[in-house]
Parts: sequence; structure tokens; C-alpha cells
Amino acid sequence: MSGLGGEEARKFVAKRVQGIRASEIRELLKLTEGRDVISFAGGLPDPETFPKEELAEVAREVILQRGEQALQYSPTKGVTEFRRVLQGFLRDNNVKVTVDDDVIVTTGSQEALYLVGKSLVDPGDVVFTESPTYLAALNVFRQFGARFISAPIDEDGMKTEILEERVKKAAAEGLRLKLIYTIPTSQNPGGVTMSLERRKHLLEIAERYDLLVVEDDPYSFFTFEPVDVVPLKTLDKSGRVIYLGSLSKILAPGLRIGWALGPSWAITTLELAKQAVDLHSSTLSQYVAMEAIRRGLVEKTVGKARRIYKAKRDMMLEAMEEYFPEGSSWTRPVGGLFIFAYAPEGIDTKALLPEAVERGVAYVPGASFFPEGGGENTMRLNFSYPTPVQIREGIRRLGLLLKEKAGR
Amino acid sequence: MSGLGGEEARKFVAKRVQGIRASEIRELLKLTEGRDVISFAGGLPDPETFPKEELAEVAREVILQRGEQALQYSPTKGVTEFRRVLQGFLRDNNVKVTVDDDVIVTTGSQEALYLVGKSLVDPGDVVFTESPTYLAALNVFRQFGARFISAPIDEDGMKTEILEERVKKAAAEGLRLKLIYTIPTSQNPGGVTMSLERRKHLLEIAERYDLLVVEDDPYSFFTFEPVDVVPLKTLDKSGRVIYLGSLSKILAPGLRIGWALGPSWAITTLELAKQAVDLHSSTLSQYVAMEAIRRGLVEKTVGKARRIYKAKRDMMLEAMEEYFPEGSSWTRPVGGLFIFAYAPEGIDTKALLPEAVERGVAYVPGASFFPEGGGENTMRLNFSYPTPVQIREGIRRLGLLLKEKAGR
Repeated sequence: MSGLGGEEARKFVAKRVQGIRASEIRELLKLTEGRDVISFAGGLPDPETFPKEELAEVAREVILQRGEQALQYSPTKGVTEFRRVLQGFLRDNNVKVTVDDDVIVTTGSQEALYLVGKSLVDPGDVVFTESPTYLAALNVFRQFGARFISAPIDEDGMKTEILEERVKKAAAEGLRLKLIYTIPTSQNPGGVTMSLERRKHLLEIAERYDLLVVEDDPYSFFTFEPVDVVPLKTLDKSGRVIYLGSLSKILAPGLRIGWALGPSWAITTLELAKQAVDLHSSTLSQYVAMEAIRRGLVEKTVGKARRIYKAKRDMMLEAMEEYFPEGSSWTRPVGGLFIFAYAPEGIDTKALLPEAVERGVAYVPGASFFPEGGGENTMRLNFSYPTPVQIREGIRRLGLLLKEKAGR
Repeated sequence: MSGLGGEEARKFVAKRVQGIRASEIRELLKLTEGRDVISFAGGLPDPETFPKEELAEVAREVILQRGEQALQYSPTKGVTEFRRVLQGFLRDNNVKVTVDDDVIVTTGSQEALYLVGKSLVDPGDVVFTESPTYLAALNVFRQFGARFISAPIDEDGMKTEILEERVKKAAAEGLRLKLIYTIPTSQNPGGVTMSLERRKHLLEIAERYDLLVVEDDPYSFFTFEPVDVVPLKTLDKSGRVIYLGSLSKILAPGLRIGWALGPSWAITTLELAKQAVDLHSSTLSQYVAMEAIRRGLVEKTVGKARRIYKAKRDMMLEAMEEYFPEGSSWTRPVGGLFIFAYAPEGIDTKALLPEAVERGVAYVPGASFFPEGGGENTMRLNFSYPTPVQIREGIRRLGLLLKEKAGR
């Protein structure tokens, strides 16, 4: 073995792992491999929601009828015709698209997040977030040297009055304020939805301190209960919102189709970054997605997802009511794929996980979702993928374990 | 308009564009938009080579029969079953895969290049290349702060005796030597293929100076003439070659399926980087690619590509013989999609381009393929995409223009 296979190799890996933390969720999932464990740790849609028959037909047709384009290289910003269809789709769903806006198609909305980090975040820049917030977003911004300042959430979403204080303080300290990252609807992992009043307040703050707003919105298309959700993008008056979306939860994640919609100067910087990253996203996926949207397959999927996920959420809530110990609490999300739970004070959910896996149930400890620490007693529970029977039994196992630990 | 829409916006864009040069090829293509121009500037495969009917059927079947997986999220490294099929495919094509190796599926081989840059290149690291070499690779490595040192090519590929001198000199100067980037077969843009003797010499140099080797190999599967091509990956004895490949030229670019094969420590660093970049590549594309390989569609495509491209190459060579002025010369590539031409000394092909477009023909000026300058009189000509009639007429227009300029 040469130096590169041995010591050099380890040095390389070690150096890189410092900067790039392996996704904690993914590492945890490895714990459960080959064991009979009910996992609430993932974030997979229920494959029952995929419109298989229709997508099979769509794929066949786009290749047969338009294969010269659908199998060919395509522009970095995305297939032009698909970008038009996508803008229409967004408009139909109450997302404002102005004449100053542009849209770029990305390899899942993960890539949109990455391109935002790569194009817009410099070392030391302050990124304001909810606490807790989406782990993968934290990991991306961290890689580009962001400094996090966060505001807590309650049932009405991010507490914007606290956000305002913290922005003000950071500005007074002379920090370089860059952007607010938020998941206003069915927040991941918090499961809460921001009120209209707070949405307006957040935009006022952004306005006052000249901040960009990155609105991450994978869930607003399939809330289970009627909620008055207006995207920040639609409320925005000064072209400072970059709106990220994805077909992963409303059609099929395997297509890897996400997008960023925003002022065209911002989309141009993302496009330049994307040229080097992957040149363009799967053309075939884009043609399939375009035809699926045209044929109303998203509405069909969303209808099904609503019914299935609402039922599963209610089942999980009911089981938690029955099995979780006194002193614990949890959110009642109007959408998304997760319930966020607070175990009784003093229980460290990260330390508890190996024991939980031993008992046949897994979850994601909540602490790593908190950009500035805290949340040691929290956990994120996925209800979209497990079966009803698994939901009930898994929550039973978890509840019993928590009761033992809480001594109640 | 707020600050962000106006001055702020321009500042942002300006700052970013400094670091990330827009692909010169893409900018040039814009010159030809909406004009009746015969373009030799692109690099698109001939859509005649796409096995449309078969891929349409494959796509329908994988979604119908395995949609629960093919439409779902999948691992960052790629669909496990596809990775196994891919390794078998590579072995069948004379690419050595050892027990210490691993493979990662990427969004085109562009992403593989990007992940190599992101994971392995630090500012100031020396990257050795051929001169000229692939522009997009230069752009990626440049983004991560690479310093380029290059060796010229002749009809037997990179002049490794000059490479050796330059590596030795750089080592003596105390520079941080990182890797050799090479396209040994049907080099882009040079069109030359490295001899076996030089391949061995290159690996000796890498061995002696403990360098990684990045072997970019999009073309070796469809050389038009029998050539004795052994991948560096196969000759490598110490696990220092990272082998990059792609289905873009041997099946269909629209799938965006590329890969990196190499020692598992290296693939692990690429996997960590990819988690943040796009989580994983299109699952649907991977399932379609897997079934296409199993059903022999790559062999079918390659057979067709060989016939079509050989005929087009010969047509272009013949037309150049007829129309290009004395004092010009060009390569006779055994594969790939390009002929590289040297105009008579004193002709600046970049300055000439607007005039060429005016006359109805476009090409890529060669200078930007030279990492350390030079090549002002060179151009890259694509023969895979234009029709036979366009090839003849385009070369006629270009030849006449060159003759005028050369005064012959």
C-alpha cells in the first residue's frame, strides 16, 4: 500500500471530515441496518402516494415523442419550456412571480440550498434561522463559513420579535448580516406554521436591515388542515426573497427536481455556480416533471398525500397521547412529515438512542437541529413512511422507554 | 427598487463573477442564437445515436415494476444495485476494479470533477494537466484555488518527459503537488490518444512524487479505429487513480449519469461532499441507466455512434483537406467528438470569431483550453452534432475566411 492508501488517505479524510460533517440523520440510520427496528428517523414520503402508472406512461411518451430533447444536454438554468410550466404552476399556487424574477431548476432543493450558500454566503456572514431548523441547511451554510444567530419558535412559528432584537444587536456589533433562512410552513423539524402577522413582521425586519430572505417551502402544497398560508415570496415588495421548492413531497423525490425562484440577479449567480457543480439537472426528470404537472398529477398526488398523512399524523398523535409520559409535549403539525416531541426535562434523547434502537424504535435526536445549542430533550418523529401498525407499536415502545427514564 | 435589486445586486454579481467565470463555450453559443449559423462550437452527441424506443420501454417498466424504489430517495453514493451493475460494466470494459475500490454515482461527470475539486484541492495546490485540456475541468480546479502546471501534447498524448521535468522542478520549489488531471484517450480538445509507454511513465511519475491521478475518460468506449487503450486505472498498482466516466456519450447525456471509481477512502470524501451538494442524483435516471446497461443498450449505442461519428469525422477531415489554407494543420482523432485545428501562425481565432459568425460558421477558439496561455491560433471543431451537409458547408465557409486572413 502506498502512502496514499494508508496514512495520506487518513489525513485527507480527517481533514475533510472536519469541514463537512456527515449528516447526522444518515449516520444514525446506519444504526438500524439489519435490525428489526421501527424507524421514525427517516423523512421518506409514503410510496403509496407516487402516481406510478401515470408516471410510467408519461416517461414512455416523453422519450418516444421528444427523446431528441429529453435525452439530450439541456441549459444550466433548466429546460426552458419546463421553467415556463413551473412558473405557471407556482402562480397557480399563490406564489408571486414578478417580471423581475427568474427560476432555476436544481437537483432537488438540496442543490438550491447549496448554490445559495456557494453564491451568497461568505465566511463570517450572519445567517438568521429558526431554532430548531433544518439540519441540512445548517450543514450547507456552515460549510461556507456562516455564523448562526437564531430565534426560537412557538405555535405561530418563528418569534419575530426576538428575531428583531437579535438582528438589531448583531447590526450594532457590526457583524455582516446576510440572510434570514426560514421554513415558514410546517417547519422542519418544529412542525409549526408562521402566522401571517409574523410573516409580515419578518419581511419588515429584512427590509429595515437590508437582508435577503431564503424561504424554504417543501410542504405548503399539502397542508392537512385549511390554513391561511401566504408565501413570503408573495408578500415581498422589494425583491429580496429567494423561494426554494421541490417536487419531492408533491410528486416523487426520485426525480430530484427542485427549484429556486427569485430576483433574476440572484438566479444568475446560482446559474453560474451550477455550471461548475453539475452543468445541469437530469433532462429526463425535467421532461417527466413538466408533463406530470401539465396532466395534473401533482394535484392527484397532493390529494392522496393529504389523506394518507393526515391519518398517519392523527394515529401518531393518538398513540403519543396514550403512551408518552407526563411532562412530555409535542407539536400538532398542519402539514409536513414530522412531529417534534419534547421528552420530560433531564432526558437526553441522543444518549437514549442506542437503548431505543435496542428496544426496536429509532428517531432523530433533536439537539443537532438547534444552531446555537439546546434541545437535548427533543426528538423528531417521522410519520409519513411507517405503516399504521408500526406507528402504534413504535410509539408504544418509545413511550414505555421514556416512562422508565422519567420514572413516572 | 430596493438596494438589493439595484446596486447591492450588481455588487453581488460582480463579486461572484470574478471567482466563477461563465463557461466561455456557453457564452459564445449565445452569439449564434437566432442566426443561420452552422455551429461547430457545441459538444452534443448526435440524437440519432439515442436508443429512444428501447429507453422509452425501459423507463415505463422500471417505474411500473419498481416505482416504489425508482421514484424514491436513494443513497448519496448511488443506488446500490446500480453501483454493482456499473462495476461489472466497467470490468467488462477493461477497467480494473479492486477490492479496495468503491464507486459513486454523480450528476454527470461534471459533478464528479466538482466533487474532486471540493474534496481534494486546497488553495495553492498544484494540478498538472495537458496543454490544451478540458475547459470545464480548469474552471472547477481554478475555483478551489489550484495552480496549474501543464505539459504539451503531441500525437502520442501528453509529453510525459516534459511532465516529469515540470513535476521535478515544482517539487524542488517546495510547491504542494496534488494531482495529475488527464484525458488519456481522444483527448478534449486535442483529439490525441496517449501511448501505452507514456501511460506507464505518467504512473511512474505519480508514484515517485506521491501524486493522485484523475483520469477523465468519456470517450474510450467508442474509438472509431482499433487502438490499444489500457486505462490508467487498470495499470495503476498503488491505488492512486480516480477514474471518471459518464453515460453521456455512450447512452444519453439527458440522464446526467456519471461516476467516479477509485480507492474507497477517496470515494468516501466525495460522498461526504455530495451530501451537501445534492444529496443524491436522480433515482429514476439511475434505474433507467441500470436496465439499459443490463439490456445491452450501451453496446448498441456505441456501435451506432462509432459508425456515425467515424463518417462525420472523415467528412470533416476531407473538407478541411479541401478548404483549409496552407500553413494550417489539425488532428486526426481516433475517437471523441472534436477535431482540434491550428490556423496559420498570426491568425487569432478569438478575434476572428465574430467575423466567422457573420459568415455563418462558429467554433470554439482554442486559447482558453491552454492553462498557461498560448494556442491563440487554435480552434476546436465539433463533428458529432452537425449534419453531413452542414459539416461540408461550414468547413467551406471557415476555410475561405482563413484563406483570406492568411493571404493565401
